[in-house]
Amino acid sequence: MERVMCCDLKAYIGNAVTIKGWAHRVRSMGGIRFVLVRDRTGVAQVIASGTLAKEPALDAEAVVEVTGAVSPAPQVTSGVEIQAESIRVLSAPVAPLPFEVNLPDVQAGPESILNHRPIALRNPKVRAPFAVQSAICGAFREFLTGEGFTEVHTPKIVATGTEGGADLFAVRYFERTAYLAQSPQLYKQMLVGAGFERVFEIGPAFRAERHNTSRHTNEFTSLDLEMAFIDGLEDLLVLEECLLEFIFRRLRESCAEELRLYGVTLPDATGIPRLRMPQIGEILAREYGKPLTGGALDPEGERLICEYSDRKTGSPFVFATHFPVSARPVYALPDPGDPCLTLSFDLLFGGVEMNSGGMRISDYGQLVANMARFGLNPADFESYLEVFRHGMPPHGGFAIGLERLTAKVLGLENIREATLFPRVRDRLTP
Amino acid sequence: MERVMCCDLKAYIGNAVTIKGWAHRVRSMGGIRFVLVRDRTGVAQVIASGTLAKEPALDAEAVVEVTGAVSPAPQVTSGVEIQAESIRVLSAPVAPLPFEVNLPDVQAGPESILNHRPIALRNPKVRAPFAVQSAICGAFREFLTGEGFTEVHTPKIVATGTEGGADLFAVRYFERTAYLAQSPQLYKQMLVGAGFERVFEIGPAFRAERHNTSRHTNEFTSLDLEMAFIDGLEDLLVLEECLLEFIFRRLRESCAEELRLYGVTLPDATGIPRLRMPQIGEILAREYGKPLTGGALDPEGERLICEYSDRKTGSPFVFATHFPVSARPVYALPDPGDPCLTLSFDLLFGGVEMNSGGMRISDYGQLVANMARFGLNPADFESYLEVFRHGMPPHGGFAIGLERLTAKVLGLENIREATLFPRVRDRLTP
Repeated sequence: MERVMCCDLKAYIGNAVTIKGWAHRVRSMGGIRFVLVRDRTGVAQVIASGTLAKEPALDAEAVVEVTGAVSPAPQVTSGVEIQAESIRVLSAPVAPLPFEVNLPDVQAGPESILNHRPIALRNPKVRAPFAVQSAICGAFREFLTGEGFTEVHTPKIVATGTEGGADLFAVRYFERTAYLAQSPQLYKQMLVGAGFERVFEIGPAFRAERHNTSRHTNEFTSLDLEMAFIDGLEDLLVLEECLLEFIFRRLRESCAEELRLYGVTLPDATGIPRLRMPQIGEILAREYGKPLTGGALDPEGERLICEYSDRKTGSPFVFATHFPVSARPVYALPDPGDPCLTLSFDLLFGGVEMNSGGMRISDYGQLVANMARFGLNPADFESYLEVFRHGMPPHGGFAIGLERLTAKVLGLENIREATLFPRVRDRLTP
Repeated sequence: MERVMCCDLKAYIGNAVTIKGWAHRVRSMGGIRFVLVRDRTGVAQVIASGTLAKEPALDAEAVVEVTGAVSPAPQVTSGVEIQAESIRVLSAPVAPLPFEVNLPDVQAGPESILNHRPIALRNPKVRAPFAVQSAICGAFREFLTGEGFTEVHTPKIVATGTEGGADLFAVRYFERTAYLAQSPQLYKQMLVGAGFERVFEIGPAFRAERHNTSRHTNEFTSLDLEMAFIDGLEDLLVLEECLLEFIFRRLRESCAEELRLYGVTLPDATGIPRLRMPQIGEILAREYGKPLTGGALDPEGERLICEYSDRKTGSPFVFATHFPVSARPVYALPDPGDPCLTLSFDLLFGGVEMNSGGMRISDYGQLVANMARFGLNPADFESYLEVFRHGMPPHGGFAIGLERLTAKVLGLENIREATLFPRVRDRLTP
């Protein structure tokens, strides 16, 4: 008999169906066995009476196939239950679980949850962030494809660092040493200049940072985009507002249950306040007595300016713009009106930096001069620079950390909760 | 003035428009300058007369912004031309091109094309495979999302090899040695067992193979999927037929121009012939006097069996099924009817293996016993094995090489033509 998913049972009242899934919870009462069967769409209550009340033996997390008639059951959340006619065990557990997965929250520490990741993920609340993540990726792609972007895949094994060499993982590449890409930044610019004009990439990025924080891992998924023929920074900010609005709309449509599990109402991402860094510096000094260090924002500065802006505007978002040249990478385009600043931005969301971006230098001479200023040797960047010698349009872009966005959307405390198999300094497994 | 794309100019006849792009070709004749402007959507003819016939100076590949009135031009392929009212150079080339990009094909050797990759990609025919590739990814994702799959991102830095250790790139991971993932195989199985049931991933895979062939690179993009609660091999074959049909339909819709550039008509992917390996062995011996070596197919065997099948059935595809245990990985499920064979398959397309897949062992005891048989130590796979101890549904899956599929669809001779920035033994740049 064709399998029916748990979320669809209501349409089968009065009919016999077959469901398949894990025995989420098994309890016996008054000669009847109540079995909750969990599949990827939800949980169904199964009533097993007669010989089925005892046989087959059923441990929690056994994989089962149950056939029986669907009847209304107003006392159950789903509104239906199945009177079992047959129960077949497809896979019986051979060891006790490291922790229960059928409570609303897994009662285990964060390290234990990560040590036993696939088991923890059977808990619907632990798994929910990844349905949200999958929907974010789908929406990112759908929106950008609609805007004429091409999806690209750039190499993760690279000859040199994106910005000169810090925090790189070294790879033994046959007779040579290569590195893992920190970001597709240089490649996406090259592809813009290669005639694609608009490209995006969803792929891993690697940072050999030694710190151990709640918002960093050493491998994460970067949602990158870059586009040519734009007039300035404002085009990028508007694009990001529209992109976020699109993503949030898709999440409301397809992840209502996941958002409900975390008690989340998605914010409005239009009309995000824009604040220039010099202005932010004044606000932080005036309101909080906190100076900017190096013209950039530290985590406390991000938190405070978000708090300030939220209080003034009601938006959890802030575009911090016009960072000083010294606080941005070599390819950031200086502001013609104030060459100490760059046409760059960070998006802050609920007190945390969500992504960085900005206009890039497209003039070959200016880029080479800037490399010298940054102490970089243009010869090391020859394969990047070539495209700038042969007609490079004005362009810019940004990159969003997928796990960071997921964590912020759901209010997760640690980015590891939004990473299937986190890589941090002391964790390489599972 | 809002930018109009070259492909949309016909809708603006009689109006003034602004286009932006690269000066694809510039020639002067009888006091008039003819400029072909190329953007990501096509090429437009611009007529520059009066002072614009000489000024501004325009080298090929200069980035320009042209404003002017659109008029019908039956003698031009696009059917329209623009009478320039202004031409602005946004970026002037500062060096001669390594080769012309405005001929139908780039007149340069394959290594030169790869050395100057972003410049070569400005040629529409060199760039076309990547529009096809982007559409393949989009269709893969759209189809699988519709089938209830979750998109996942698994780590590319791993502690051990997928299947025991050959062809791994080593990474210096802080105080330890780690490796680059050869495939997400073990992770996608773990996620199936973690309750996702159906997962897919689009991501890089790394193989430290020393050979240098037209169908291998050391880093490629793998389209991976894995699904639980299926009845057997046939479910996977039908899924792949439907998936390919869906992808080909999307390509016919969105990549007609790219397919035309390569003179391609996409084949029918339904009703793909299925041939068991023992049967293939008989056919190759009988028809070509060629024995199977180790029960598997070498490149010549793949070519011959495709040729045979195409002759008999008219399909360029063959599902080769039931490979011997010795020719498949440790997790391949033996055929209960003939335990020397596995419930596995390769899809061959036009003489080349496109992807491998099959049913996997889901029983913990059987998997551990098979590891011993393969000379693997189960303790090395503890984080993979855990999920099998706690209820693992029957499952299977497959993986398609994105570049290989793109190359085969377009009839490209070398997979590097379908890779933006190929990584092979002697190439780490650009």
